[in-house]
Amino acid sequence: MNKQLVIMGATIIDGTGGQPIEDGVIVIEGNRITGVGDASTPVPPLATKIPAGGQFVIPGLMDANVHLVAEHFPVTLVRYEGRYDELAVEAAQVTLKNGVTTVFDSWGPRQYLIKARAAISEGRRVASRVYLAGNIVGFGGPFSEDFYPQGREVLFEEYTRRIHAIWEEGVGPELMWMSLHEVRMALRRHAESGIDFIKYAVTVHNPTAAPYIAFSPRVQKIIVEEGHRAGIPVQTHTTSVEGIHLAIDAGVDLMQHIEITGPRQALPEETVELIVKRRMPGALLAYTDGVLGWFQERARTAAFFRQYDVSDRNQRALLRAGATVLLSTDGGVFSRDALNSAMWAQYQPPAERLLELGEGHFNWLLAVEQKGMKPMDALLAATRDIARAYRVDRDLGTLEPGKIADLVILDANPLERAANYRRIAQVIKDGVVVDRAALPDPKLLTEGGIARDERRQR
Amino acid sequence: MNKQLVIMGATIIDGTGGQPIEDGVIVIEGNRITGVGDASTPVPPLATKIPAGGQFVIPGLMDANVHLVAEHFPVTLVRYEGRYDELAVEAAQVTLKNGVTTVFDSWGPRQYLIKARAAISEGRRVASRVYLAGNIVGFGGPFSEDFYPQGREVLFEEYTRRIHAIWEEGVGPELMWMSLHEVRMALRRHAESGIDFIKYAVTVHNPTAAPYIAFSPRVQKIIVEEGHRAGIPVQTHTTSVEGIHLAIDAGVDLMQHIEITGPRQALPEETVELIVKRRMPGALLAYTDGVLGWFQERARTAAFFRQYDVSDRNQRALLRAGATVLLSTDGGVFSRDALNSAMWAQYQPPAERLLELGEGHFNWLLAVEQKGMKPMDALLAATRDIARAYRVDRDLGTLEPGKIADLVILDANPLERAANYRRIAQVIKDGVVVDRAALPDPKLLTEGGIARDERRQR
Amino acid sequence: MNKQLVIMGATIIDGTGGQPIEDGVIVIEGNRITGVGDASTPVPPLATKIPAGGQFVIPGLMDANVHLVAEHFPVTLVRYEGRYDELAVEAAQVTLKNGVTTVFDSWGPRQYLIKARAAISEGRRVASRVYLAGNIVGFGGPFSEDFYPQGREVLFEEYTRRIHAIWEEGVGPELMWMSLHEVRMALRRHAESGIDFIKYAVTVHNPTAAPYIAFSPRVQKIIVEEGHRAGIPVQTHTTSVEGIHLAIDAGVDLMQHIEITGPRQALPEETVELIVKRRMPGALLAYTDGVLGWFQERARTAAFFRQYDVSDRNQRALLRAGATVLLSTDGGVFSRDALNSAMWAQYQPPAERLLELGEGHFNWLLAVEQKGMKPMDALLAATRDIARAYRVDRDLGTLEPGKIADLVILDANPLERAANYRRIAQVIKDGVVVDRAALPDPKLLTEGGIARDERRQR
Amino acid sequence: MNKQLVIMGATIIDGTGGQPIEDGVIVIEGNRITGVGDASTPVPPLATKIPAGGQFVIPGLMDANVHLVAEHFPVTLVRYEGRYDELAVEAAQVTLKNGVTTVFDSWGPRQYLIKARAAISEGRRVASRVYLAGNIVGFGGPFSEDFYPQGREVLFEEYTRRIHAIWEEGVGPELMWMSLHEVRMALRRHAESGIDFIKYAVTVHNPTAAPYIAFSPRVQKIIVEEGHRAGIPVQTHTTSVEGIHLAIDAGVDLMQHIEITGPRQALPEETVELIVKRRMPGALLAYTDGVLGWFQERARTAAFFRQYDVSDRNQRALLRAGATVLLSTDGGVFSRDALNSAMWAQYQPPAERLLELGEGHFNWLLAVEQKGMKPMDALLAATRDIARAYRVDRDLGTLEPGKIADLVILDANPLERAANYRRIAQVIKDGVVVDRAALPDPKLLTEGGIARDERRQR
Repeated sequence: MNKQLVIMGATIIDGTGGQPIEDGVIVIEGNRITGVGDASTPVPPLATKIPAGGQFVIPGLMDANVHLVAEHFPVTLVRYEGRYDELAVEAAQVTLKNGVTTVFDSWGPRQYLIKARAAISEGRRVASRVYLAGNIVGFGGPFSEDFYPQGREVLFEEYTRRIHAIWEEGVGPELMWMSLHEVRMALRRHAESGIDFIKYAVTVHNPTAAPYIAFSPRVQKIIVEEGHRAGIPVQTHTTSVEGIHLAIDAGVDLMQHIEITGPRQALPEETVELIVKRRMPGALLAYTDGVLGWFQERARTAAFFRQYDVSDRNQRALLRAGATVLLSTDGGVFSRDALNSAMWAQYQPPAERLLELGEGHFNWLLAVEQKGMKPMDALLAATRDIARAYRVDRDLGTLEPGKIADLVILDANPLERAANYRRIAQVIKDGVVVDRAALPDPKLLTEGGIARDERRQR
Repeated sequence: MNKQLVIMGATIIDGTGGQPIEDGVIVIEGNRITGVGDASTPVPPLATKIPAGGQFVIPGLMDANVHLVAEHFPVTLVRYEGRYDELAVEAAQVTLKNGVTTVFDSWGPRQYLIKARAAISEGRRVASRVYLAGNIVGFGGPFSEDFYPQGREVLFEEYTRRIHAIWEEGVGPELMWMSLHEVRMALRRHAESGIDFIKYAVTVHNPTAAPYIAFSPRVQKIIVEEGHRAGIPVQTHTTSVEGIHLAIDAGVDLMQHIEITGPRQALPEETVELIVKRRMPGALLAYTDGVLGWFQERARTAAFFRQYDVSDRNQRALLRAGATVLLSTDGGVFSRDALNSAMWAQYQPPAERLLELGEGHFNWLLAVEQKGMKPMDALLAATRDIARAYRVDRDLGTLEPGKIADLVILDANPLERAANYRRIAQVIKDGVVVDRAALPDPKLLTEGGIARDERRQR
Repeated sequence: MNKQLVIMGATIIDGTGGQPIEDGVIVIEGNRITGVGDASTPVPPLATKIPAGGQFVIPGLMDANVHLVAEHFPVTLVRYEGRYDELAVEAAQVTLKNGVTTVFDSWGPRQYLIKARAAISEGRRVASRVYLAGNIVGFGGPFSEDFYPQGREVLFEEYTRRIHAIWEEGVGPELMWMSLHEVRMALRRHAESGIDFIKYAVTVHNPTAAPYIAFSPRVQKIIVEEGHRAGIPVQTHTTSVEGIHLAIDAGVDLMQHIEITGPRQALPEETVELIVKRRMPGALLAYTDGVLGWFQERARTAAFFRQYDVSDRNQRALLRAGATVLLSTDGGVFSRDALNSAMWAQYQPPAERLLELGEGHFNWLLAVEQKGMKPMDALLAATRDIARAYRVDRDLGTLEPGKIADLVILDANPLERAANYRRIAQVIKDGVVVDRAALPDPKLLTEGGIARDERRQR
Repeated sequence: MNKQLVIMGATIIDGTGGQPIEDGVIVIEGNRITGVGDASTPVPPLATKIPAGGQFVIPGLMDANVHLVAEHFPVTLVRYEGRYDELAVEAAQVTLKNGVTTVFDSWGPRQYLIKARAAISEGRRVASRVYLAGNIVGFGGPFSEDFYPQGREVLFEEYTRRIHAIWEEGVGPELMWMSLHEVRMALRRHAESGIDFIKYAVTVHNPTAAPYIAFSPRVQKIIVEEGHRAGIPVQTHTTSVEGIHLAIDAGVDLMQHIEITGPRQALPEETVELIVKRRMPGALLAYTDGVLGWFQERARTAAFFRQYDVSDRNQRALLRAGATVLLSTDGGVFSRDALNSAMWAQYQPPAERLLELGEGHFNWLLAVEQKGMKPMDALLAATRDIARAYRVDRDLGTLEPGKIADLVILDANPLERAANYRRIAQVIKDGVVVDRAALPDPKLLTEGGIARDERRQR
């Protein structure tokens, strides 16, 4: 017989958008929810009871865009070579500890992410549920033009080639030189390689370049077809208005950072309308006022930062128009050396960072509150709507009978103040209470380097 | 009364593709041809006679793709700042001297090229007839990512900004961030800025990058519409199969280096067929066997050179299929310092260079001969077909009554051996015999630098 | 008969260190002073009289270290190729306008500086008297490791070679590979090449590198011997304590920026004592408190700026110990593009700049005042002591009969406040009243670039 | 009782320079030689006998200049962080396997080399005997200007700082900014830090730079004094004629690559005479004719290679003059990625490499044979003379009673052909027959990278 668990007395915000249930009851059997309701809900007599009077229960939070292996700098990639799965698991532990029960990794080394996903789903490691995309179709590896080409200059050619092979796996930039048939075959292999969704490049990655388009409309259609043929959703890296229209025409299911349209032109009204009409989910990188101020400050001398003002206007326009937006952080875990580097100081704000896993989602919720999003909509953007966009809403996203029991118990009402999302009392994933104290704060990466070395010397 | 000129006794290859006329007569009045025919053609009694027995007359050659201000390196751009028109005129003199009576400048500093064009068309300078495009729509200036970004690192920001403004003139990379309406307005201004044709970027310039696409189909359509609205033809910088299809769909009139499709995929049959069916003119960069061998040699260690083998196969496929191909060199005039530099040695073959104005067109004709193109077709590719593609065939491209009298008298039959194009006896442009001895070999640039300085010191 | 000029009624601070003469008289015949004294001094009856009651006369100021052709960046060197003498003359006009009647150019293109010196000494151009060293023996040209190697990367090899030849002239870095005899011969040629003094590298130029030593003691001796053999003084570029001792041992006559000893060690007492005992003149780069604060601010993040605190302590120690210090600015004239560049903002303080000709010497005098130097000593450091150090005190440096009539008339007493050096009423050089209004503020360089270009376009 | 070993019947070339002993006998007790002589030499009755008829016994070979941790590129330093001692041991195994029983590591990470030395001397690992210097006094760490500054640009500041600290250990470039007293104290600490000898920089490392001098004569004297005070020899990195004279004046005991004097000036006669007169040992990097030819070929386009011709002339002059020269390779063990890199192909000859441990010493012996060195002198240069120069000749360098039993048994006479040094039959170190089959060919580094990773994945 399955283990039974009952949460009693809390206010339940079930993620359906309906009225919160006060003094509610949630019944969990095994890893599924079997009952949700008011105090009158029948409770199995032998169930373990979790008294939660005065507390608030919400569905486990989700992050629609993370990179569990985020630090693609030479030192880090070499140091953890062959162990990227460990980095990924630890990153997913950091998110779980902070109430995010599911993450969607939209760019990373596929084989290692699959290993991490297996370790977690098979219960060998306690961490956030992981869905993964592997490479972003069309992009090169960590030291390609798309990411950190400077690194290549001091690495041996063979090393770079090997590292790039781990990331690209046959769906890298060479796709742009391929015939339609070759593209289709490459995508078919990719779609069946154990990934949970496809992400492809509509536009270039380098955000200082003009928004060049990676694939012609007919090639984009092939990419989407092959994803759908394999039964998985298809999303995009999009950074321009034209890119949005191309992606919508291609039939994609989700767009990442739909709000990025460059330093000049905001989303035209017709585009916003189209997004809303097509119910196209858009994952936003929402920055708090504090961070936007820091960007604005830097924009005076560095053109790169000028885009953020436009992005913010786009986000507000999408929210006003009622577009389906999703919580996303683009977050990762970073090493002490990276966090202390001059480069970081140049590009990352000193506080309320979105990019930091375990932290970023709180700042996202704070940011959309500041932008005037309704509290209930913000909650849905972090739960139900992500599950729907990723086609996993049969199992995840709400507190309803039949759903997997992923939930967070908070000490304060998140609908009152977004800051209350931080007041986590308990996290339950797969019907099991997570021992949060046992989960790490970031360690592997931050303890890397000489620290490790010094330990060896002792 | 107009000056009258008669060329008598030559074999006339009139550029219509018809049978050569032996012992022919060409009558010129003013700058127009008034009669072409066999020995029985009536000749104005007072006309100046040019006996040309045993010689061959062909229409003035054309080059569908040159850059009269080609050397966009810091030293050169600074040294000739404010004098780029002089460089352009000299380059057009070098071409005229070698039988090319008309050149189409497809990327350069608009205002200076217009100045050069005026100096030539108004008769102040004797040089090839110039048609010009100004900037390639979508590309940045000389030190942008599209060309020589390294230069930027050691130039002052304000200097770079000024230089880029000269090239970009409002139709640079920022177009990719613009709204549809803004793009239309920018193109309208551009189309009416005194240019003779529009060239726009279908794909990125940097040939080592993957062939990212600059503009979405609907933006490409706007660009083409605005060109045609202003009554000028529209051409493209295209470097991929997808790029070709996009350009054809957009309705362009001509494509540059239609044979470049990257290091991997040759032109698919369907694409070749489409090109032929649509009678889409494609300007080719045709390399001789010697140069192709040099590329192949280098391809062993430098991936960049691997594309040339595919390009050559594409050219042969297009020729076999009967596509309309055009002579083009991408040529310029370069300084002694550039020609002697390590960079040049790395990228430019030691002989039979296409890129060198005054030389390149001879090598092109040699190259297509080696690829099996019929001699008459090669001649049309260098004359009539270029005139048609550029919509100037009312005036240029053939030796027919009513046409402008641009022609070359050769000492040997070019239909026998392409090498005979070098055997120039006389060049007539606008009905005037060109004093070829008075035209320079490249001088300004090659005598630049210390030479000039030393002269000053004396 | 020579023109005669009499300045009457001013307070004369004659640069000998003696008591100022109130209500004094200076008699000038031709370009020489023939009388200096109180009101009783005999005055030639026909002399032109300059009434100067309430004013102050000092010897013409001197700058012991300038670079009349200072801007060695690609754009500038190319733009003014063959015209560096014009840049030099203009820079010397800017200094003259501001009361500096003599400058010592300690690094520059010899042949052009000689041309400028001739234009000035022969009266064709009105500007400061120029003494020059040509290259700093041992250093490479503008794009060598010693100065701006980045530039080299985007310049053609032949161009760099030619430019370097102009600067190095056989006494560049290759000297370090030469035999003793070859060094001697190279120096002999150099000493006899029309230069006024020799400057050689004791230590490397790049101030971020450790202070490597250019020449062994026995080679340094040869360099000094050859200078003295030719009857010209020898000075050094010195940037470390060891360097100072080596230079003193070698028998040099003057040291530039003797106060630079790196970020760590201040001048040891024994070194200060040695400098004082040997009466070794040291040209200082003296920064005002404001500039030192700016350096200190930047030192927090940029190690480069940490040296300035040590340098300041060294200057104060030298002043306390009574060392012979000389006004020097290392100054040049810079283009608008340079002044507006990011690089400039990074390395040059926003105000009270030493490096700017026409300005720097005023700031130097302000700086030493702030450091507690006695006003009279400061005046001597800017006049007599420089003349002595450079062995030109027979003609220059004081207001005494027999000396060349270089002097400045001020509206306020410079011994009261250093700021009063700015209150220039008149400048007399070579016995002639300078038309200061006719002298330019920097123009050539600042009007360079597009400005010039735009004028051409009109 | 000690183990006893007798080698019988071989020709003994004992490294004293005397006549070889035919049919000789070597008696070893424990780790020392107790008898050497002809067939009549008394032999302990219970000793293990090694019959060596027809073979040749020579002292264990030595290499006066190796770098056991040689590959200072980002990937490698990160991958083996904390394990550099393992790299060092393996490198010393590679040398031992090839007959080199003692190596002198003249630049490396001190603490790791000491760990490796201990593992070997305490018998935990079988490898060549190691003597070590730690850092070269005055030089910076792997990513400093002295070695591979490009690496720094893509590494985090903190990482670089930590790595540099491992190499520099207080005797890096900052020494050039220190006071005499500070230098002395830093050297005293260094001399007592467990190193076997001091190596200091007379001239810069970067061989393309002019040969700047690191320390003034008086600082060099302090360095030498402190080495001798601690009872250890002092050697130099020297790359110019002036450097040699400075080092000799400072009283050093040995110079590395005494033959490097730049691209221009060969060793003057007086310098050669001084070296011979002072009996100053000079470790040479001797290249074979094949390698010199390869250098010459490259010298046509790359100035860097021009120095090798001068170096070779210097070596021949030193050999002719009878200078004490020592075998040295500068050798290391390198990864497959390095060996296959474009950089390697550019700087390292394809064969007869000196720089490769296990190979280099054979090529050195071949090279000096080609240069006409007498076979016996070459043997001494690889054994006795190194032991003397390093002051370890009480224990090592010859086959004499009382010496440590390090020796090599060859199948062919090395005095006949240098190639015979490769015909190793047995290596005995410390009186123990080395199991050469158990020693690795390079493995750690060459199996690094993805290979390791792939193993983990399996």
